[in-house]
Amino acid sequence: GFVKIDHHRRQRQGVPEIIFGEGKTAEQITTIIESLKSRGHEVLATRISQEKAAFILNEMPDLTYNETARTVSFVTKKPEGAGYIAIVCAGTSDLPVAEEAAVTAETLGVPVRRFYDVGVAGLHRLLAHIDEIRGADVSVCVAGMEGALPSVLGGLVENPIIAVPTSIGYGANFNGLSALLSMLNSCASGVSVVNIDNGFGAAYNAVLIHRLAHKGATT
Amino acid sequence: GFVKIDHHRRQRQGVPEIIFGEGKTAEQITTIIESLKSRGHEVLATRISQEKAAFILNEMPDLTYNETARTVSFVTKKPEGAGYIAIVCAGTSDLPVAEEAAVTAETLGVPVRRFYDVGVAGLHRLLAHIDEIRGADVSVCVAGMEGALPSVLGGLVENPIIAVPTSIGYGANFNGLSALLSMLNSCASGVSVVNIDNGFGAAYNAVLIHRLAHKGATT
Amino acid sequence: GFVKIDHHRRQRQGVPEIIFGEGKTAEQITTIIESLKSRGHEVLATRISQEKAAFILNEMPDLTYNETARTVSFVTKKPEGAGYIAIVCAGTSDLPVAEEAAVTAETLGVPVRRFYDVGVAGLHRLLAHIDEIRGADVSVCVAGMEGALPSVLGGLVENPIIAVPTSIGYGANFNGLSALLSMLNSCASGVSVVNIDNGFGAAYNAVLIHRLAHKGATT
Amino acid sequence: GFVKIDHHRRQRQGVPEIIFGEGKTAEQITTIIESLKSRGHEVLATRISQEKAAFILNEMPDLTYNETARTVSFVTKKPEGAGYIAIVCAGTSDLPVAEEAAVTAETLGVPVRRFYDVGVAGLHRLLAHIDEIRGADVSVCVAGMEGALPSVLGGLVENPIIAVPTSIGYGANFNGLSALLSMLNSCASGVSVVNIDNGFGAAYNAVLIHRLAHKGATT
Amino acid sequence: GFVKIDHHRRQRQGVPEIIFGEGKTAEQITTIIESLKSRGHEVLATRISQEKAAFILNEMPDLTYNETARTVSFVTKKPEGAGYIAIVCAGTSDLPVAEEAAVTAETLGVPVRRFYDVGVAGLHRLLAHIDEIRGADVSVCVAGMEGALPSVLGGLVENPIIAVPTSIGYGANFNGLSALLSMLNSCASGVSVVNIDNGFGAAYNAVLIHRLAHKGATT
Amino acid sequence: GFVKIDHHRRQRQGVPEIIFGEGKTAEQITTIIESLKSRGHEVLATRISQEKAAFILNEMPDLTYNETARTVSFVTKKPEGAGYIAIVCAGTSDLPVAEEAAVTAETLGVPVRRFYDVGVAGLHRLLAHIDEIRGADVSVCVAGMEGALPSVLGGLVENPIIAVPTSIGYGANFNGLSALLSMLNSCASGVSVVNIDNGFGAAYNAVLIHRLAHKGATT
Amino acid sequence: GFVKIDHHRRQRQGVPEIIFGEGKTAEQITTIIESLKSRGHEVLATRISQEKAAFILNEMPDLTYNETARTVSFVTKKPEGAGYIAIVCAGTSDLPVAEEAAVTAETLGVPVRRFYDVGVAGLHRLLAHIDEIRGADVSVCVAGMEGALPSVLGGLVENPIIAVPTSIGYGANFNGLSALLSMLNSCASGVSVVNIDNGFGAAYNAVLIHRLAHKGATT
Amino acid sequence: GFVKIDHHRRQRQGVPEIIFGEGKTAEQITTIIESLKSRGHEVLATRISQEKAAFILNEMPDLTYNETARTVSFVTKKPEGAGYIAIVCAGTSDLPVAEEAAVTAETLGVPVRRFYDVGVAGLHRLLAHIDEIRGADVSVCVAGMEGALPSVLGGLVENPIIAVPTSIGYGANFNGLSALLSMLNSCASGVSVVNIDNGFGAAYNAVLIHRLAHKGATT
Ligand SMILES: Nc1ncnc2c1ncn2[C@@H]1O[C@H](COP(=O)(O)O)[C@@H](O)[C@H]1O
Ligand SMILES: Nc1ncnc2c1ncn2[C@@H]1O[C@H](COP(=O)(O)O)[C@@H](O)[C@H]1O
Ligand SMILES: Nc1ncnc2c1ncn2[C@@H]1O[C@H](COP(=O)(O)O)[C@@H](O)[C@H]1O
Ligand SMILES: Nc1ncnc2c1ncn2[C@@H]1O[C@H](COP(=O)(O)O)[C@@H](O)[C@H]1O
Ligand SMILES: [Mg+2]
Ligand SMILES: [Mg+2]
Ligand SMILES: [Mg+2]
Ligand SMILES: [Mg+2]
Ligand SMILES: [Mg+2]
Ligand SMILES: [Mg+2]
Ligand SMILES: [Mg+2]
Ligand SMILES: [Mg+2]
Repeated sequence: GFVKIDHHRRQRQGVPEIIFGEGKTAEQITTIIESLKSRGHEVLATRISQEKAAFILNEMPDLTYNETARTVSFVTKKPEGAGYIAIVCAGTSDLPVAEEAAVTAETLGVPVRRFYDVGVAGLHRLLAHIDEIRGADVSVCVAGMEGALPSVLGGLVENPIIAVPTSIGYGANFNGLSALLSMLNSCASGVSVVNIDNGFGAAYNAVLIHRLAHKGATT
Repeated sequence: GFVKIDHHRRQRQGVPEIIFGEGKTAEQITTIIESLKSRGHEVLATRISQEKAAFILNEMPDLTYNETARTVSFVTKKPEGAGYIAIVCAGTSDLPVAEEAAVTAETLGVPVRRFYDVGVAGLHRLLAHIDEIRGADVSVCVAGMEGALPSVLGGLVENPIIAVPTSIGYGANFNGLSALLSMLNSCASGVSVVNIDNGFGAAYNAVLIHRLAHKGATT
Repeated sequence: GFVKIDHHRRQRQGVPEIIFGEGKTAEQITTIIESLKSRGHEVLATRISQEKAAFILNEMPDLTYNETARTVSFVTKKPEGAGYIAIVCAGTSDLPVAEEAAVTAETLGVPVRRFYDVGVAGLHRLLAHIDEIRGADVSVCVAGMEGALPSVLGGLVENPIIAVPTSIGYGANFNGLSALLSMLNSCASGVSVVNIDNGFGAAYNAVLIHRLAHKGATT
Repeated sequence: GFVKIDHHRRQRQGVPEIIFGEGKTAEQITTIIESLKSRGHEVLATRISQEKAAFILNEMPDLTYNETARTVSFVTKKPEGAGYIAIVCAGTSDLPVAEEAAVTAETLGVPVRRFYDVGVAGLHRLLAHIDEIRGADVSVCVAGMEGALPSVLGGLVENPIIAVPTSIGYGANFNGLSALLSMLNSCASGVSVVNIDNGFGAAYNAVLIHRLAHKGATT
Repeated sequence: GFVKIDHHRRQRQGVPEIIFGEGKTAEQITTIIESLKSRGHEVLATRISQEKAAFILNEMPDLTYNETARTVSFVTKKPEGAGYIAIVCAGTSDLPVAEEAAVTAETLGVPVRRFYDVGVAGLHRLLAHIDEIRGADVSVCVAGMEGALPSVLGGLVENPIIAVPTSIGYGANFNGLSALLSMLNSCASGVSVVNIDNGFGAAYNAVLIHRLAHKGATT
Repeated sequence: GFVKIDHHRRQRQGVPEIIFGEGKTAEQITTIIESLKSRGHEVLATRISQEKAAFILNEMPDLTYNETARTVSFVTKKPEGAGYIAIVCAGTSDLPVAEEAAVTAETLGVPVRRFYDVGVAGLHRLLAHIDEIRGADVSVCVAGMEGALPSVLGGLVENPIIAVPTSIGYGANFNGLSALLSMLNSCASGVSVVNIDNGFGAAYNAVLIHRLAHKGATT
Repeated sequence: GFVKIDHHRRQRQGVPEIIFGEGKTAEQITTIIESLKSRGHEVLATRISQEKAAFILNEMPDLTYNETARTVSFVTKKPEGAGYIAIVCAGTSDLPVAEEAAVTAETLGVPVRRFYDVGVAGLHRLLAHIDEIRGADVSVCVAGMEGALPSVLGGLVENPIIAVPTSIGYGANFNGLSALLSMLNSCASGVSVVNIDNGFGAAYNAVLIHRLAHKGATT
Repeated sequence: GFVKIDHHRRQRQGVPEIIFGEGKTAEQITTIIESLKSRGHEVLATRISQEKAAFILNEMPDLTYNETARTVSFVTKKPEGAGYIAIVCAGTSDLPVAEEAAVTAETLGVPVRRFYDVGVAGLHRLLAHIDEIRGADVSVCVAGMEGALPSVLGGLVENPIIAVPTSIGYGANFNGLSALLSMLNSCASGVSVVNIDNGFGAAYNAVLIHRLAHKGATT
């Protein structure tokens, strides 16, 4: 029956709440975080500009601002346990999205390993780390412009890949459309896609997969 | 080193090869299947029209044609083991894509359960089966037209969902664009997306996730 | 004959005039409102930024500014009579559009009931209110991102639904295109659509329908 | 509770079932209609080609095929009662969509009046009938190419208009996109829009509105 | 031979030069105008913001700034002679484009008559002036949103119409795309189209047509 | 008043009626032409396939079929009088559209001169005829692929140009979109545009302009 | 002066003429080829279907039909001389485009080396041949779906790459748009792009570059 | 083997490094340039706004800022040697892109000749310089709006052309889409295309081609 829905995961104490900061004022975000903290929740807010962060941390100095990921968080536990998510990223311009993914996964308690600036036009950079990426339960693969990285990576690893197109580029990039279409048309199997710049969503999916891979350990 | 790539998963005997039939002639497909069978491989070919299937099965009568899924297969083992993939499908017009996913997963050895014709405009149909869908390790969620099903399902289940937009619809559907954009913009967490009508790709991702969820059992 | 057009609804005294504020200066809007008020008209102006509102209310302090709806109004009568319009809204980011609809309907004299933040990813929120929504003569259904709410609602209520896509979202949302296409492709019957972010237009349609439903009472 | 959904309008005996024929074989449609007829339902099937109709009527000679509307129906009652829906149509090429709307409304029991070939490039044709169109409870307004008719009509009538863009045209028409965008951007109030070529959907909405306008008479 | 090109119309003294101001700095525009004036040319500069105009007129106080048309001009002769161009415009938001057209035509020496705010949703406004519009040699017809005005006007007048879509609107307007597609698909004959917001280009075409219509007077 | 509309050009005897053949059956077209001929009208029907033409001419052997232009006509008078329209065409694949324009203009009584296969990649071909094109009152300029011809021609002639994009091309041509956008963005003044492949519409505009240029002679 | 254009490459005897066969009838192509052959020209015709080829070769049995490239040719000389063009191709479905390029280059007298089925999802296939590709003066790089191959190749070779997107794929491929946008956004330097499926154009560019690289040898 | 990739061209001392400035802060760019200079590299940074340039040159006054090209460079050698690249540009608004190309080529050591403001609407401007353009090894051809210049130029020169669409224009230009599609559909052979506004990429390709044309001289 429907009563099950009431026992929704996010309502259980101790699991971090995640707030989407875009389109909310610094005051609104502050109010939400204060309310959550007071009820004992850990908190992550994404898409927080530097101006908003300054306001929020002035009110709650025990929060942490990650400037690249544009996140504000109040998290007391460290990610721990077996396995890890690989966060793989093509160029330095894609870092904000990659870090949004990394911080989200860590906030949700899962260890990540970062493999940044390994775009396909300099293949040796990716190949230098390929064994460690293969060791991950699941990869989040972030790329803008032509979005080719998930196709190359998909041919090299056997575990699932969550591809994140970014809006990095100009001209015929059309704000991430080129990377999005590339990833949806990937000739490599084992690649699924989330929205442009949606580092959070990719990490969330990866965390669900990681949880499945390691649920045997705890049950 | 790169030598690892040579030992690619699909080249290992006993794991089915999957052939994309679109744009290949019946003769070409027949030749490929014969060659694979003779080397002891199990085989699945997708996107096979009735005309092509007639030709192929005339040559190799021990193959099976699934008319809805439009697949030809030579598979000797049954899917078995713990866990299952839920194949959830909005309308009867989406059946070919859903069945392509189902047959792919079964061919790769993973049990599936089918939940068909449970589109969001008649919510009770989905809710009637929700507990069994929740029990799946991962769901493949197939929908055309407005593609709303993954968003609704995503709010009801905790495991990952692979969403497949279909090209079913007309007018402002633009051959599946409406469903694709819907799924990429899903407000539910835990949803990732594959290409329009890509039942195979969704199943492949789901199989990788299922394998992770149950690898403890065999290792 | 054409002379009928001269007796256009809006020219009749006492029925509120509605001004589209976008692309007009605060001075222009002030002049229009002053002229209408002096002729005894009630007035509603939509798409009024906070800056413009400050200017306008400085000139005419008896006006009301609704910050969420971004409307300025001079209305002396309360909505009254039988029946009501349900204003149903998926997320808190959609509130400005929902409130533009609500204020428009109320200004035109029709009672509304608000059902906000009932998006499809948390279905229990919608189901908790479904009987009251079913009681409305007509619903205005506002949603951004994947725009799935009208499809779900359309399967649950029997009266007409005016769907309003909003531009809320990012990436493959393309400024509301994803929600617009979803709604146009709705698999639920009884759903028609207005322009992206057009809360006013949806309410205007709903008011016409409500008037038809209750004209028996007055005639 | 949810049990209400089981008593869905269409399941109640005597109210016609409506089948979407596109993508179904003549055999499938025949089976569905036979099953519905045997349970006492009236039936309407839309998007039926001449070939399919020939097959179906061969099996069930008491059905009626409307060649323009491309519908097959088994309806025993005549539309009757107060009020009517105006079906207004720009060009002769739009007739199949207009007739799909007209037949749908009549099948659902509501009288319609047809105003065909009254496109805006010959305004006198529309103006000759404007008083009778104004008398309708609601209009379905069908136009292809530039889709300007709902804007002109919307300025002349006070009741709601359901606009249906058609795919008629070529070149920069993009299969109905030009008419669709026109109608969504209509500068006339009181216009809402359904999918390209969706005569059925427009009529369904109009019937719901007509029912509201006349429910007083029966309740 | 090619030598004819050297005797290009614009190089002949006394005919106004027209400068496209967008993307040029106030300094650059000032330099160009000074140079042209010093050689005895009349000058028109379009797309001049208020800031740029302030700078330019500070340097050359004998220039005229038209705030609505966003033009700066130095023209000593009045438009004169037989015939006129009708500038017809749907809404007040379209005024900048209509005025750019009007000022361009007048600068090139052709009389214009303005028919503003005669959009199709209030047809009586257009019909009140239709005889005078019919009297024009050619009409420039400016409209945003659904861009329906040229289709209606085209059915009422026999001379050519140059249609100008404007970027006025929001949502599914897509910056003028809806009006552009409407006008290209006009069911009225005698309508041709220029770029979105290109009042200058429409007027230039109209001036060429007017010149043909009246060249008999001078030859 | 509106009565003027009744005296519409097409209703006056002797002026050819123009029928749009696309989407009409050969029987329907035959009926329309017979009816018009019997009332003394000259007739032109466009977009007539070879199959339809065979049927129609079998019924009325005194009609003429122009295979390239895909027109059927019954015209007894020759184009005559001063001036001419230049029909300028880039490639041989654009001929059907160019000929539709030429036949339309001739049917409406205006002499044309044809300048075919003068695309911009072989500039000498255009330059060889430029003086004669300059002598035309107005040019219809037909081009597919990149649609550059109107821009080049616009810089070489002083009279108006009606540009017709064609759907000739493949790939990033998108059925004529590339040529359409090119022509709308032409950097040459004096160019206006009609719909993709609309040879009829271009000629109709050109005839209106030619009539203005020569009305002095007859009035 | 312009007289130079008359001495255009194609007019010089012995250099092959290239005919674009799409949209031409078998009769037309036969006539063109006969005329060219009779004047001593070598000839290549592209985009020739099997049906057309059968007709043409029946008339001129000394022609050669390449079924994959879909070309008909009459060429008497072999490609020879220093250097070569690498034709690199992602998947077997891209073969027709790759072969159109290869045949075009060979017809124009330049040696080619083929590297087929070396798509990025199986990187070892490309790397196995990389030294030989590096040895080419210029590469033509053909790929459909996500079009990632030029980016990977561009990072591995130093000479120019002409990228050809193909229309191979389905769904969000949009007939080659995904590959086209990918290639235009390539993060590798040294990559330029031609139209979707334009193997001819890519080869033509490559031949020009090869000629520059080796002109020293003959001058 | 892969070790070759480590000896990447740009890593070799003395060859300029090229930095893409967009999306990097002035501080980041300063740090990168300082690090490269200290290792003896020549440096070019593109897409540098005036504000960023002021900051950077304050730190390193021996750098050069090119305001039009928006580049900052530290280059000690002059371009020299045989041959040259022609930089051909349609309008003055395209100058930033043309200059980005010119500066890039010069920085990479190749002489360029500039042919600016030679758009197709004033053909004599291009023809006046055509012999000198023909003398170039390769041309970079920059144009916005309708992007017709490469097609015209391609018919006049025999060497390769790298076409660069620019985002200059408005309305149906769609930020450079019109010019991009034009260039991809060019009817002239020998034209390949890079991304919108990608002056750098065009020059890079041209430099590779120039190098091939003159490598004989140095080897
Ligand atoms: N960066 C992000 N992108 C997309 N969704 C997000 C992001 N961050 C958080 N979310 C989602 O937004 C939800 C909270 O939204 P809200 O109720 O508006 O605060 C979270 O539970 C996540 O599902
Ligand atoms: N508002 C306008 N829109 C489009 N083109 C214009 C406009 N104003 C001037 N032009 C054109 O731009 C040319 C001058 O461009 P420029 O040399 O860049 O100033 C004029 O000769 C006109 O052809
Ligand atoms: N090839 C054509 N393209 C566009 N419109 C045409 C064409 N041929 C005729 N027409 C228009 O279609 C009208 C006739 O349409 P119909 O009444 O459907 O035959 C004519 O009066 C013209 O305005
Ligand atoms: N496959 C092709 N794709 C694009 N252009 C081609 C192709 N084959 C030939 N061409 C071009 O088309 C020209 C001949 O066109 P045509 O005059 O129509 O025969 C050739 O000289 C080439 O420039
Ligand atoms: Mg893989
Ligand atoms: Mg979920
Ligand atoms: Mg309903
Ligand atoms: Mg109205
Ligand atoms: Mg007219
Ligand atoms: Mg001109
Ligand atoms: Mg390279
Ligand atoms: Mg050339």
